[in-house]
Amino acid sequence: MSLHSLPMAGNTHKFQAPKGTRDFYPPAMAVRRYIESVWREVSINHGFEEIDGPTFEHLELYTAKSGPGIVSELFSFRREGGDADYALRPEFTPTLARMYASAAQTLPKPVKWFCIPNFFRAERPQRGRLREFFQWNADIIGDDSPSADAEVIAVTVGVLEKFGFTPDQVKVKISHRDVVRDLLMHLGIKEQDLQTTFELIDRRDKIPDHEFEASLGQLGLSIDRIYDIKRLSGAPFEIGEEYQIAEYFEGVPKSGIESLERLGSELRDRGLRPWCHYNFSIVRGLAYYTGTVFEVIAEGERSVAGGGRYDKLVELVGGPLTPAVGIAMGDVVLRLILEDRGLLGETEEYLPRPDVFVISALDDDGGQMRKLVADLRRSGLHARHSYRATKNVGKLLGEAGKVRARFAVILGKELEDGAVALKDLESGDQREVKVELLVQTLKDALGK
Amino acid sequence: MSLHSLPMAGNTHKFQAPKGTRDFYPPAMAVRRYIESVWREVSINHGFEEIDGPTFEHLELYTAKSGPGIVSELFSFRREGGDADYALRPEFTPTLARMYASAAQTLPKPVKWFCIPNFFRAERPQRGRLREFFQWNADIIGDDSPSADAEVIAVTVGVLEKFGFTPDQVKVKISHRDVVRDLLMHLGIKEQDLQTTFELIDRRDKIPDHEFEASLGQLGLSIDRIYDIKRLSGAPFEIGEEYQIAEYFEGVPKSGIESLERLGSELRDRGLRPWCHYNFSIVRGLAYYTGTVFEVIAEGERSVAGGGRYDKLVELVGGPLTPAVGIAMGDVVLRLILEDRGLLGETEEYLPRPDVFVISALDDDGGQMRKLVADLRRSGLHARHSYRATKNVGKLLGEAGKVRARFAVILGKELEDGAVALKDLESGDQREVKVELLVQTLKDALGK
Repeated sequence: MSLHSLPMAGNTHKFQAPKGTRDFYPPAMAVRRYIESVWREVSINHGFEEIDGPTFEHLELYTAKSGPGIVSELFSFRREGGDADYALRPEFTPTLARMYASAAQTLPKPVKWFCIPNFFRAERPQRGRLREFFQWNADIIGDDSPSADAEVIAVTVGVLEKFGFTPDQVKVKISHRDVVRDLLMHLGIKEQDLQTTFELIDRRDKIPDHEFEASLGQLGLSIDRIYDIKRLSGAPFEIGEEYQIAEYFEGVPKSGIESLERLGSELRDRGLRPWCHYNFSIVRGLAYYTGTVFEVIAEGERSVAGGGRYDKLVELVGGPLTPAVGIAMGDVVLRLILEDRGLLGETEEYLPRPDVFVISALDDDGGQMRKLVADLRRSGLHARHSYRATKNVGKLLGEAGKVRARFAVILGKELEDGAVALKDLESGDQREVKVELLVQTLKDALGK
Repeated sequence: MSLHSLPMAGNTHKFQAPKGTRDFYPPAMAVRRYIESVWREVSINHGFEEIDGPTFEHLELYTAKSGPGIVSELFSFRREGGDADYALRPEFTPTLARMYASAAQTLPKPVKWFCIPNFFRAERPQRGRLREFFQWNADIIGDDSPSADAEVIAVTVGVLEKFGFTPDQVKVKISHRDVVRDLLMHLGIKEQDLQTTFELIDRRDKIPDHEFEASLGQLGLSIDRIYDIKRLSGAPFEIGEEYQIAEYFEGVPKSGIESLERLGSELRDRGLRPWCHYNFSIVRGLAYYTGTVFEVIAEGERSVAGGGRYDKLVELVGGPLTPAVGIAMGDVVLRLILEDRGLLGETEEYLPRPDVFVISALDDDGGQMRKLVADLRRSGLHARHSYRATKNVGKLLGEAGKVRARFAVILGKELEDGAVALKDLESGDQREVKVELLVQTLKDALGK
């Protein structure tokens, strides 16, 4: 290839972003950074520490967890001439478990980790589902108490509250694998039919009532029992009123109710009662959940986030037997719901706001504007200037206002005396300031 | 797959991160976030706006820019059953050009964009070179003036300065494709030998002196001319002393020197003279550079960053003819040099510092500690507590100190009167505070 010619090859068709991926121009990027900052700030306030792993992993890390069926949902590849298969990460938990497993000896118990990586799924893009998306994960590893479950729910509610949601708009629906299994067996479901029943309950909202009833009937259940299971998977129970479950399903094993009562007590201590209720229709398809499972549902039954306890995964990837519980919230559905709810302001509001916009009204300032802008930036201020040729101060102030600059500095005749005009773009006040005092004056006014 | 058993398959060998990638545990992640925050803050202060693109692109975007030879350096793949070839991004410029090209009609001129994405190269990992790394990019698109070149150099120096580098430690070495070509032709290099000569100059530091001379001799140059080219590609020229180049290479075309003079003047206006000099041995292999090129070199001749003007790329990917100039700085070499220079503190210093660590000295606080911690977090404070069973206040204060908490709150007998002890962990001062005043007292003390 020559240094001075480019490989043109008449190849001037427009390239596009791959299907299901996004270009983030500044306003969209600013909103993404806002969402990430809420995730990050609330996670840190709750004592979680940030981690990250590689964007791709050995393919077998995913098949070990999810079986070979997962491969068709992954973007997988191999380096030219290499012998290992890799896949773009479709979720974080396998990486998390791998990282914990390989450092388990030296890590404290528990660790509380969060991350905000991007993930990839080779599925057909649709509203709310993309091929590349961002997702917040928060996990507590090494604590098997209901307190850890409650902490994960607490940080989730903290995030929802920070975004501006109220308990009327979103609910954390909580279930427990063991409790539901006990209840189902108590209601006459045989061990070998448990899996089918879980799947039925999981799909309950998507199939007609009569089909749901008929399917349960085929498992040999009486009308009364079918009604009980509809009750179980239907109306929610309140946190703190676990006794109602025991009353309703007379004779159900005490241990499950007690386990819920402990979780309920932890949730109430943290003031989470208004945000949560039990809903035993929450199954969550993932096979690896072992205890508490929960899902954040917004009005309109859209799932915003989900998680639960997975006490066997760290062992599965080669670490010691280690209890773990976590939550994941993606950016795509979240953003749609924030928009629907009016919880996102005008996109431009998220763009960083300039501290100062420097305007030269002089025909030739001898490089003074560039020097001043450079000095302001070097002192840590966000300083801009116009790239237009105009010297019309009114127009340039208009540009400063459009990018929401806090102050304008105008270089005019006063520059001969070593002074500039400083205009507060909120109050409109304007005064003269010596150039050598400008940085300190601005920093004081901005509280920087 | 059953809900209650996991796909064990005896598969309990330890999984590892793919070769050339990194696991970021909390301390390493905190340092990464520090590096990113410097890149981001300085970019914003200089008026750049953040963007991002997809992690993978159509493979042909990269072959269009770099030719088919690039493929072996990429991680490329195809979705199962899909018909498009993709590649993990090895650099940002093709995405940037694509994004600009597809929105060129609606974008202002110039746009100043920065990004901090991860990139992937399928090469053999070695010190300073990984298969996945992070890289800051800053570009000005739509401005062909030397002022834009100077602004890109200014934001680069701003970043270096913010990291704590001094001009003794790093230098921006600047060259210009056209000027060097003019000089070489003036010195007797024939048009058809320009490419070879550029390549020789690029490799000058890596080959013995006599080999360099012999290769130039083979191009038919006299001893004097070989000496001139050694001078040209050797000692630097100072910014603002462009006339020396003209004096040294008598008869060289004026236009090139004038072009450097304009750039030099822009750099001096911005106070960048101590950080920069001309060094015509900087070629930068990438074929697409069209004017100014520059490289940030740390002592020991390690390249920390590099960039230049690429006025034809936007057109190449289907947009209008658009001038552009940019810089890229990776995280891997940067971090090594920051460490070598002692410019990184103890890793733990980068971890977020808790505002308050809550300690319960009571045998049974009836959930009061959890409630208090939850309230503190809800009010936006970073609050932690111990996960250990001990009630030994001394030990727990030790834990609070270890995570560098700013304050400790101790729940003791005073809780009966609705009060707790608040201890300033920097001064050691301790006082009693009513529980209902705790949040405000802490916020005032922390200036939040």
